[in-house]
Amino acid sequence: MSFSNVNLDELQYIDDDGNNKSKRDEVKTPLRNARRKSVTSPPRMLKPPGEDESGSNSPANSITSINSLASLLREKMQMLPATLRKKKTTDYKTRIFVALLFITIVVLIFCAYFLYHQKVLQKAYFQKIKFNKIKRIMKIYNNEGAEIIRARLGTTINYDKALPCLPIDEKHDGSICSEWMGHARLYMQHHQFNSEVKCYNFQWISLKDSMAPTDCFELSQPNDHWYGGGQTAESAWPLENGNHDFAPFITGRVDKHEYGNVLKRYFLSSKGVAIIVDDQTPLYVSVAGVNTKELCLKAQYDDFAYVNRLMKTAQLNYSICTSSDMMKLHSNLVENALWDGLKREDMNVVNSLLTEPLWEITSSSKSELTEETISNYTDNVVNVLSFLKLGHVLINEFWQKNVGDFEVDSERFPGLEEVIEIMHRRGFRIVFSIQPFISTESFNFYEAVKKRLLVSERFSDRRIPALTRYKSSQSAGVLDVTNDRTIPWLVNKLKSVLAKYKFDAYYLDLGTAYNMPHYYQCEKPLINPDQYKTFFINSLQSGVSLFGVNSAVERPKPPTFVSLPQFESSWEGLRRVIPTILTYGLLGYPFLIPGAVGGDVEAPETLFYANYSSELLPDKELYIRWLQLATFLPVIRYTHLPSTFGDDSVLDMAKTLTSLRESKVTPLLKKYAKTSLDTGLPLIRPLWMLDYNDTACHVVADEFSIGDDLIVAPVLYSGAREREIYLPAGVWKDGIAGSLRKGSRWIHDYKVEQEQVAYFERMPDNTRF
Amino acid sequence: MSFSNVNLDELQYIDDDGNNKSKRDEVKTPLRNARRKSVTSPPRMLKPPGEDESGSNSPANSITSINSLASLLREKMQMLPATLRKKKTTDYKTRIFVALLFITIVVLIFCAYFLYHQKVLQKAYFQKIKFNKIKRIMKIYNNEGAEIIRARLGTTINYDKALPCLPIDEKHDGSICSEWMGHARLYMQHHQFNSEVKCYNFQWISLKDSMAPTDCFELSQPNDHWYGGGQTAESAWPLENGNHDFAPFITGRVDKHEYGNVLKRYFLSSKGVAIIVDDQTPLYVSVAGVNTKELCLKAQYDDFAYVNRLMKTAQLNYSICTSSDMMKLHSNLVENALWDGLKREDMNVVNSLLTEPLWEITSSSKSELTEETISNYTDNVVNVLSFLKLGHVLINEFWQKNVGDFEVDSERFPGLEEVIEIMHRRGFRIVFSIQPFISTESFNFYEAVKKRLLVSERFSDRRIPALTRYKSSQSAGVLDVTNDRTIPWLVNKLKSVLAKYKFDAYYLDLGTAYNMPHYYQCEKPLINPDQYKTFFINSLQSGVSLFGVNSAVERPKPPTFVSLPQFESSWEGLRRVIPTILTYGLLGYPFLIPGAVGGDVEAPETLFYANYSSELLPDKELYIRWLQLATFLPVIRYTHLPSTFGDDSVLDMAKTLTSLRESKVTPLLKKYAKTSLDTGLPLIRPLWMLDYNDTACHVVADEFSIGDDLIVAPVLYSGAREREIYLPAGVWKDGIAGSLRKGSRWIHDYKVEQEQVAYFERMPDNTRF
Repeated sequence: MSFSNVNLDELQYIDDDGNNKSKRDEVKTPLRNARRKSVTSPPRMLKPPGEDESGSNSPANSITSINSLASLLREKMQMLPATLRKKKTTDYKTRIFVALLFITIVVLIFCAYFLYHQKVLQKAYFQKIKFNKIKRIMKIYNNEGAEIIRARLGTTINYDKALPCLPIDEKHDGSICSEWMGHARLYMQHHQFNSEVKCYNFQWISLKDSMAPTDCFELSQPNDHWYGGGQTAESAWPLENGNHDFAPFITGRVDKHEYGNVLKRYFLSSKGVAIIVDDQTPLYVSVAGVNTKELCLKAQYDDFAYVNRLMKTAQLNYSICTSSDMMKLHSNLVENALWDGLKREDMNVVNSLLTEPLWEITSSSKSELTEETISNYTDNVVNVLSFLKLGHVLINEFWQKNVGDFEVDSERFPGLEEVIEIMHRRGFRIVFSIQPFISTESFNFYEAVKKRLLVSERFSDRRIPALTRYKSSQSAGVLDVTNDRTIPWLVNKLKSVLAKYKFDAYYLDLGTAYNMPHYYQCEKPLINPDQYKTFFINSLQSGVSLFGVNSAVERPKPPTFVSLPQFESSWEGLRRVIPTILTYGLLGYPFLIPGAVGGDVEAPETLFYANYSSELLPDKELYIRWLQLATFLPVIRYTHLPSTFGDDSVLDMAKTLTSLRESKVTPLLKKYAKTSLDTGLPLIRPLWMLDYNDTACHVVADEFSIGDDLIVAPVLYSGAREREIYLPAGVWKDGIAGSLRKGSRWIHDYKVEQEQVAYFERMPDNTRF
Repeated sequence: MSFSNVNLDELQYIDDDGNNKSKRDEVKTPLRNARRKSVTSPPRMLKPPGEDESGSNSPANSITSINSLASLLREKMQMLPATLRKKKTTDYKTRIFVALLFITIVVLIFCAYFLYHQKVLQKAYFQKIKFNKIKRIMKIYNNEGAEIIRARLGTTINYDKALPCLPIDEKHDGSICSEWMGHARLYMQHHQFNSEVKCYNFQWISLKDSMAPTDCFELSQPNDHWYGGGQTAESAWPLENGNHDFAPFITGRVDKHEYGNVLKRYFLSSKGVAIIVDDQTPLYVSVAGVNTKELCLKAQYDDFAYVNRLMKTAQLNYSICTSSDMMKLHSNLVENALWDGLKREDMNVVNSLLTEPLWEITSSSKSELTEETISNYTDNVVNVLSFLKLGHVLINEFWQKNVGDFEVDSERFPGLEEVIEIMHRRGFRIVFSIQPFISTESFNFYEAVKKRLLVSERFSDRRIPALTRYKSSQSAGVLDVTNDRTIPWLVNKLKSVLAKYKFDAYYLDLGTAYNMPHYYQCEKPLINPDQYKTFFINSLQSGVSLFGVNSAVERPKPPTFVSLPQFESSWEGLRRVIPTILTYGLLGYPFLIPGAVGGDVEAPETLFYANYSSELLPDKELYIRWLQLATFLPVIRYTHLPSTFGDDSVLDMAKTLTSLRESKVTPLLKKYAKTSLDTGLPLIRPLWMLDYNDTACHVVADEFSIGDDLIVAPVLYSGAREREIYLPAGVWKDGIAGSLRKGSRWIHDYKVEQEQVAYFERMPDNTRF
């Protein structure tokens, strides 16, 4: 220790001697004093001389060798201090400036590094996508560079390290592959749908059984609204008003399940983004989140909806398409050219349904439906409601003795041929309802089991049919349409009934996916129970005339209409009609049969159903308001005749509305039916289809427009005599007052008496009185 | 160092001086010389004088102080070397002896440690069990200390560390609890069944879902043979001759499944050990192993046999019971006092069945069974086979139009009352076969669905029945007997048919566990599908007279007989009869109906079934040999009349055998039926029941004994005219030659012509001609 002190001392002195003394004095004096103190401190380190010797028992004692070393160091050190000393001579301010400069450079380097790191994490793909592989946040930008969708991908992956895929897993089709080892693999691909629409495909492949790939899309961005999917329990329009947990995306009844009778794996946002999910994906959907609502898509196999594992593990496969605006995007993506394969007669059927009412003869029990019931009902229509077109009479499944007979019950209908002939002469068309079910009561059941025409029970003997319940059938088998025996057998039966009774068409009452037996097994495996409907409708359409179906996941060819779900007879039920018909229109179903005026007898609300008997009627005000709404919808469907209220005001109302429908609505419906066949756009449109840039239009769920020409704003609340109305851009003629109204604005507290309905006809933009 | 040398030197000299010189000279001279050499060695340790001083620069220099210390030590050391020196004086041989002694002691200590460690691992429990917790090898010893069973417990546990259970898991009932952390817990308990039988209960509780507790018992120990369980595909007697992988222990058909129509969770070994498995255990059983055969028990829930999880995880719960010998053990464990609750009429029914034949009228199609068929058949019996008792006529389910009608088909049987009356007058008793199934064809199906009398489909709407197939019913529901509505409904129907047609009893054709719908769900959850049978039989027995059942897991009360499974019409089928009837007898079913003479029409071998028509007959030699065997079995059952062969030799044979049965067999059967009611022992016994100590008796599978009195050794191979016969201890009278035979020995190449059957009657031990 004493050795190092000595050396330091010497070096200090060397420095002082061999340098410019003036500089040092100016700046370094305080420092030098401090150093000198330490140099003069040897007395503090006093030690016994003997110890000094024993502590350093080697070269320390030879002073000469130290001096020679010191002189060597002295030479070397002369070079360095020369430059250092020069800086010390610059003035104070310059030095602060240099320090700041230095700090700035350091900060900039750090910023650059940070941003670079960010950039590395959030890589850009296909020019418009930014994706952070660690947080798995993805953003897509439009051509103008604005963010149009933000998503959290792979939310169920509990692992952060993304790697490039192994060469064996690469697809070599331009897709980018990333893998979260042992969890999931993601393929991203870009394809130009057409000149106006860009699409990005995302395919998650789960790498373990317990991983259900899940992607969530933010719904709560400012001025962003979403539509599509299907009817939900909340009848949400736009979609973000809904709120439900993950549910399999299969048809059901919204009183029991999450989704309604018509579905499409299609979601559209007002910022011009659409999500289209592949049919083979075992899709679960949720709309959830407290502050930030998200639309989440999940791929998961289960034991009913997605029991047939097409892939080894669940795959989530969907495309995100973008265009400059939502209308352009939707027009490009919606199925068009619906006229393809359409015959002239088919067009006549479509027009007749748009023009004439649909009379539905309901009866809660088999015995109530007889020749007499039918005659009485139609007599009533002819005599009391002569102002109405006669239209179509829909007879439910009770024309058979047991569901699945596919033969007229000759006990209750001994002279049905004659009755039908009389009805035909009066101008009615007659439609018989059929189901894909064969009741165990039916004499056909034995034959169907023997010929193996029925859906069988999984993991059992394939010959054992699986049973289900539907409406009046307490136990019934389901026709397996995936084999090549059932449809010929069925069509043959249906044709022979048609030949004998000469009625006009069949209505197919398919039930929902949940009416499939829980352990169903078809000859060919179904992707999901809904695929059954598509099989059934398509194969039956080529055999017999199909008037309508009550559930679908693919649009049946016209002239087959699709029914809206059943709405309960309540104001709540009435308010569900518009969001539902708007959603179904967006999904690509232009030809829809709305529920019965006043609510459906067989509506999902069991409370209502239980209380109902043929004597019970809907609330009169509700019936009137419902009739006002129905007047503007594609098909008007009656279960309760307006005459049954025994109230002239109701009859008068019906008369007025009928003539209104004939003069204003029917021509428009016919006009837009033609457009629909060409473009796939709905007859009944949301306001935003008239002005997609107007953000106020995006959220209106209680008005609609027939094509682009007529806005309807019915009253949907009990006792209400006024309502808020929004008109999109343009000049509109008030249907009640006859006055002109300027669009793009709200009309507050618009008065609507009970016998009135608010509607607005589009006028040329230059119209002035 | 020099210091210690110096001191040692000094001490040495001190020793030499202060001790008895004579002793030292005698013995220790060689040693002392050696020491002296080292003492005289200082020159080797030559060091510079200066160093000596620096190395010991403190008290070493004062010689005086060292001398005082040395003198102190000298005194102390005088005591010790005195004894050491003495040993050193013993001669060479003694030293080797000592070394050997020492090595022996070390080895012994090691052995003791090793054995102690072994002992610690293989702890003894309840005096007679040794259990090594690490390897989980368990051995049980009898009172004489001989090992009687060896088992590998918890074979599926993949973890070696056993700990005592937490206090919360202890049962506080004297059981010992061990836990393999996170895998399984084992409770062992001892209870004295009675003064002769000791039982040990083992209960494994799985602690995770994937753990199926499995215990395996060695079957291949010398002179150890096992019996019980049920009929297996191999018809193994003893059990270790079988070989099959794990199968759920539920009833089935051995052509399709592992086990037959009657089961009991009871296994017995010739060393006097029985394993009884708890009813609630979801039991899988295997008999497997190439060199060492093992009987393995596994507890595992699944999706059909053990779908109702009574516990959170699978539990394997069984008892091992031991006694001094297998007969004593079996007599104690078998259900006895079967007469409890028996009426005089019931005993008459039993006796009539043992005495009179059972005529089974089979018909492969419904239309073949008419009043005429029945009349013709019985006419044939009366006219041609007048030497036979008339007995019971069993009519299959085709008396109904559709299975589940529970009404006579009036189209095919317009005058059945009269036919039955005629048959009654002739002396027949008439039995109608019923099933727990209701065909979807039956008019009762609708009512049963409506009243919810049927087994429903799991996870579906509880009102939807689950279907199955059985025999002629291509789709049928299953009556749910766990509710309180079904049995009254059924008994009511059955009673009214009985009241109208006045026949004698019903035969219950239950099918096997596998005839339950795959996704069955009863109102009360079943432990397994077999529990259904017990419910059904017990509740029906109190309502109507039940003649027999064709499947059981619990013995029905007498006079209800249990059918053996159906045997195909082949020599293979014939050879299955004896092992099966012996097994069922051991399981506690004394009153058995063997299959039809010549093989069953509806036998499991589908090859046979497909080729069969009413004209086809079994092979004549097979029929004769079968008839010879059947003559000695409890009930003789005919499907094909001996007259149908059109061969007088067959008819003569039948006549001879009938008189033999009447004179020799029926009295014995009646005698032992009474014994059975008291003891639960079978009528038809394996040879070892006559002499359980005779190891040769343990493996005989082609002979049997009626009670203890008559040994039967039928010919079971095509074309054979001789066979090997073993007779147990005693004096036996040869049935063919009439000569006396000494027991406990083999009779080789015993001649048996086609019209002969070998049997031996027991004579008093002192009989001599």
